Amino acid sequence: MKVRFTKMQGLGNDFVVIDAVRQPVEPSPEQIRHIADRRYGVGCDQVLLATPARRSQADFGYLIFNPDGSQAEHCGNGVRCLARFLDDRGLVPAGRHELVIETINGLSRVRLCDDGPVTVDMGAPVLEPPHIPFRAPSRAREYELEVEGQVVRLGAVSMGNPHAVLRVDDVDSAPVETLGPAIESHSRFPRRVNVGFMQVLTPTHIRLRVYERGAGETLACGTGACAAVVSGRLRGWLEEAVDVDLPGGRLVIHWAGDGEHVWMTGPAETVFEGEIRLD
Amino acid sequence: MKVRFTKMQGLGNDFVVIDAVRQPVEPSPEQIRHIADRRYGVGCDQVLLATPARRSQADFGYLIFNPDGSQAEHCGNGVRCLARFLDDRGLVPAGRHELVIETINGLSRVRLCDDGPVTVDMGAPVLEPPHIPFRAPSRAREYELEVEGQVVRLGAVSMGNPHAVLRVDDVDSAPVETLGPAIESHSRFPRRVNVGFMQVLTPTHIRLRVYERGAGETLACGTGACAAVVSGRLRGWLEEAVDVDLPGGRLVIHWAGDGEHVWMTGPAETVFEGEIRLD
Repeated sequence: MKVRFTKMQGLGNDFVVIDAVRQPVEPSPEQIRHIADRRYGVGCDQVLLATPARRSQADFGYLIFNPDGSQAEHCGNGVRCLARFLDDRGLVPAGRHELVIETINGLSRVRLCDDGPVTVDMGAPVLEPPHIPFRAPSRAREYELEVEGQVVRLGAVSMGNPHAVLRVDDVDSAPVETLGPAIESHSRFPRRVNVGFMQVLTPTHIRLRVYERGAGETLACGTGACAAVVSGRLRGWLEEAVDVDLPGGRLVIHWAGDGEHVWMTGPAETVFEGEIRLD
Repeated sequence: MKVRFTKMQGLGNDFVVIDAVRQPVEPSPEQIRHIADRRYGVGCDQVLLATPARRSQADFGYLIFNPDGSQAEHCGNGVRCLARFLDDRGLVPAGRHELVIETINGLSRVRLCDDGPVTVDMGAPVLEPPHIPFRAPSRAREYELEVEGQVVRLGAVSMGNPHAVLRVDDVDSAPVETLGPAIESHSRFPRRVNVGFMQVLTPTHIRLRVYERGAGETLACGTGACAAVVSGRLRGWLEEAVDVDLPGGRLVIHWAGDGEHVWMTGPAETVFEGEIRLD
């Protein structure tokens, strides 16, 4: 059968998005591997399948697949592209600017802007050390960690995944390649940790590089941007809305403070439309 | 403007093919770079533009662009994909099975098979040492070359680009990574050389790995397959039609003998169709 798809990207993270709401598509793992192959298929970081919602509270569902055919969890760049796709394809009722998307582990709210960007509810940050998880006697705005023979000061935040946030004077010269893996596998982070290096330009503008758990430095880590703003705000450096410049581009993070959800706004762009035969 | 394209591949060498016969398209180097980008564009090894012929002897022209926007020379895998594209898009008059394609440096004949594969006239091999170029006192079927403290026996053939062809017992264990670069830059090949390692399974079936000049080992070198069959035939090991198994797949090479052209038959496959906005 022939399947129509849209190639999209958000901050350089790229997706093949398929409408399984109006097309009867259920790609097999072999078909996902074929679609994701950059030489023999379309090529992408992940395949997104827009589906009808199963629960009445949700407007749509979506499934995310890795290039090896396995199913992945929620992805900030991915859900922005999914929401932009649903809107561009006319699947969102006229006048609706907020959608509830059903993910593999819960519901995600997204807000559509007319001019392209999409805002995603990233949930409330988790700050209690045992739930991050991080080994510390009690919750604090900043912690000291001995690593590589020095003491570094960091914030610890979970956005569904654990983050350590360090402040540096200049991200370009930050020791991402050395301190990143050393902190990632530090014994006080029992499930390892993503490590953010944040340069505060102004209270509403930071630069950020993130060493991702198991992946190394990436172009744009959405949860890392959220964690950096939460930690920077708790430590008194940042205001409620902050522009975060990542190597792949800019995200805008809003966080009103303790108990509130973090909202992430960023680009979601169509690269091209296509049609592929799946056998 | 929106431009329709077809993503194709031949032996893993992949192309974005654009119809500039019926669409008024003249992509700028910036637009080529965008199209060729695997993350922010469509992604390919090269962009092929099918154009009207300028000379009356040719049916169509084509331009090949590298991902950096520069123009490239003739490519065996590319012209097969181009011919398959012209046929699939209905540009070839009914009943025609042979086309003359105008390339940047001459005319290329191609033959279409109904079931997919395409045969390309690769021209006559050049065997005179000064024209390969190769430093040797006179033309021979086999030469000895001192390299890395040993003497290797090789054939020397130009298919528009220079090739050295060595026979090995087993391509899997052939010293491609050591002898390849040593022969590539040997002083007797003043313009360097592509180095083929050929295992003769039967007189009509060989296996081949090619260390390409300036590129290292590649999945499928069309001119290397031609050179291997020419050299193997001159040395008495091969018949007129030979299956050549390369890491990327199979080519069939026909060569009737001295003075004759080499014909190469191989796959040319559509991966998907698409439409991209070029600004």
